[in-house]
Amino acid sequence: MTQIQDFGFGTQIRKSPYFDATVRWGATGFSVYNHMYIPRDFGDPVQNFWNLINDAILCDVAVERQVEITGPDAARFVQMLTPRDLSKMAVGQCKYVLITNAQGGILNDPVLLRLAENHFWISLADSDILLWAQGVAVNSGMDVTIREPDVSPLQLQGPKSGAVMRALFGDAIMDLRYYWLRRVDLNGIPLIVSRTGWSSELGYELYLQDGSRGDALWERIMAAGAPLGLKAGHTSSIRRIEGAMLSYHADADIDTNPYELGLDRLVDLDIEADFIGKDALRRIKADGPARRQVGLVIDGAPLKGPNTTFWPVTRDGQVVGKVTSAIHSPRLDRNIALAMLSAGSAQMGAQVQVRTPDGTRSATIVERPFHDPKKTIAVA
Amino acid sequence: MTQIQDFGFGTQIRKSPYFDATVRWGATGFSVYNHMYIPRDFGDPVQNFWNLINDAILCDVAVERQVEITGPDAARFVQMLTPRDLSKMAVGQCKYVLITNAQGGILNDPVLLRLAENHFWISLADSDILLWAQGVAVNSGMDVTIREPDVSPLQLQGPKSGAVMRALFGDAIMDLRYYWLRRVDLNGIPLIVSRTGWSSELGYELYLQDGSRGDALWERIMAAGAPLGLKAGHTSSIRRIEGAMLSYHADADIDTNPYELGLDRLVDLDIEADFIGKDALRRIKADGPARRQVGLVIDGAPLKGPNTTFWPVTRDGQVVGKVTSAIHSPRLDRNIALAMLSAGSAQMGAQVQVRTPDGTRSATIVERPFHDPKKTIAVA
Repeated sequence: MTQIQDFGFGTQIRKSPYFDATVRWGATGFSVYNHMYIPRDFGDPVQNFWNLINDAILCDVAVERQVEITGPDAARFVQMLTPRDLSKMAVGQCKYVLITNAQGGILNDPVLLRLAENHFWISLADSDILLWAQGVAVNSGMDVTIREPDVSPLQLQGPKSGAVMRALFGDAIMDLRYYWLRRVDLNGIPLIVSRTGWSSELGYELYLQDGSRGDALWERIMAAGAPLGLKAGHTSSIRRIEGAMLSYHADADIDTNPYELGLDRLVDLDIEADFIGKDALRRIKADGPARRQVGLVIDGAPLKGPNTTFWPVTRDGQVVGKVTSAIHSPRLDRNIALAMLSAGSAQMGAQVQVRTPDGTRSATIVERPFHDPKKTIAVA
Repeated sequence: MTQIQDFGFGTQIRKSPYFDATVRWGATGFSVYNHMYIPRDFGDPVQNFWNLINDAILCDVAVERQVEITGPDAARFVQMLTPRDLSKMAVGQCKYVLITNAQGGILNDPVLLRLAENHFWISLADSDILLWAQGVAVNSGMDVTIREPDVSPLQLQGPKSGAVMRALFGDAIMDLRYYWLRRVDLNGIPLIVSRTGWSSELGYELYLQDGSRGDALWERIMAAGAPLGLKAGHTSSIRRIEGAMLSYHADADIDTNPYELGLDRLVDLDIEADFIGKDALRRIKADGPARRQVGLVIDGAPLKGPNTTFWPVTRDGQVVGKVTSAIHSPRLDRNIALAMLSAGSAQMGAQVQVRTPDGTRSATIVERPFHDPKKTIAVA
């Protein structure tokens, strides 16, 4: 976590166009993501969680860098990058996709935006897909242009985010559907907005297309939103683990395949296109994945914070996997976790042991997500 | 900078195998590089600089992740990745190279190690060249295996590093030449050592090949080295700017080409191999680069720390470029900087203005490096 009084390491890590605004609005700690600072602390992560689920928060997620793909072969090229069937993806639509390598390993889990027939943005988790895509293009024989445009997203998330959007853009914005995007303009600031986010709550992302206007955009949104309950905040680890949303590098990496995560719905082996990883994924599906992601409810006192190492999971004294993300949910009043276990150990309801730095705890394997507005929690 | 009492962000950022050891030995602040924490603060960066140039320091640079390339076509594939002529690179040799994209832009400036005829490591600066190389391989038709091995480097740098190496490995290690490597073993810990580093001082890198032995290796080196003057430390921004060594993302990025940096010696346009970027680099060379990196000596009081934004450089009121890295050198008692200027403005000896957050200062354009044991500083 970076202390704001002491950014001592030069220009090697980028600053977001909202950096100064977030410091003014109370950011006290930063992490690094896609070679850029991201505010991850506004004093109390539990209060930030309540702000998110009861009201609304504005989060600087400029670290979600965009990879822009244009050119006559853009649509064909983008389909090559992901196992998800894009043939019915409309202009104006967004899709959550996986980017896989030739071994079927996950390189990123971005949101894909289709801005025009042959104009896409890949809104990234934390890895240099710009390099991956440019590398794939080298010998592809396809006519595409791949670059990082001047685009810096904000997330506006929480039940009151709709009211804030209405205050900013008028009633017309209210018919923007889940995972669709629209071009808008806010006092001359050029934006794309989409109904997406990383919170499992009602929410929007606003993609600023001119970094020099970051401060103005942030202040304009807070001015309209604060009277409606909007707070400055940061993406909530509590809420995203409740919702079983992935954090790349933590819950998935280059050695993780979609089937291990139960993300079969994001792999369409029957499409004609030869996306990268197709043969490998076909083999993995036929054999069945060697590991499976599960939910865990961990016994004992509330965890003081998230796990900062991968905690071994054991059964009968044997290591059968690892906790990838763990946290205490104040809403559920339970310690919840995502874990990757050997497939043979991933039985719902089974008891396992988790080796935390403070001692071993019992845990129960449960379904994910832990909290879904449409479902009750999977444990009694 | 990450405060050690408060690693609050889960497992999304990796920890080095030396992490616990560096905390024990006084690391108080961390940055993030290649998705991994790197210690960058042991209390006083100026003292760390003196330790480096007068004695020796041991630095955790496990963030220098390795991309391993093996397979029957490995040598041919690696030559495709870099404009530097590798035809005379021997097994056991290292080379500082640039990785360029099809536009001639720099994606990384790693050290390349040749461990066997068809066995290479690319020891990375801060970008996911693993993804770039795997992407290039997809349609290359070459038989290569590209992965990140379990390898975690340390840097042992400074005038007394040779004595420490002798204490560890005996007299035989003293004939290891500059930019050559050797396989060694330290009490059963498997290592590659090379005479390389990021300090412009005498120095070595030790590539641990078993992450579980990180703590043991660190303690073994400190036990042998401390009586000889070795201190725990971190890569020194002061020394690397004195030596005009690049920091990727700060001094170079995907939109920077080798000619702008004066790194013509790393581009061999006349080799037969079609490395990526060859056509673009040929055009850039013919036209002349639009910008040139220069050294600056900045007037006024000692800078309090490195620049944390790119400072505009002006001449006659017009912006002609930017300061990419600036710092006060206590040895030279001058404020020194690397800057990227329009080619027409990059005249040695010319005066420019630098807009710092605390006001505008005058500066003089000078040759780099600022300090070279074989040269005197380029300014009077």
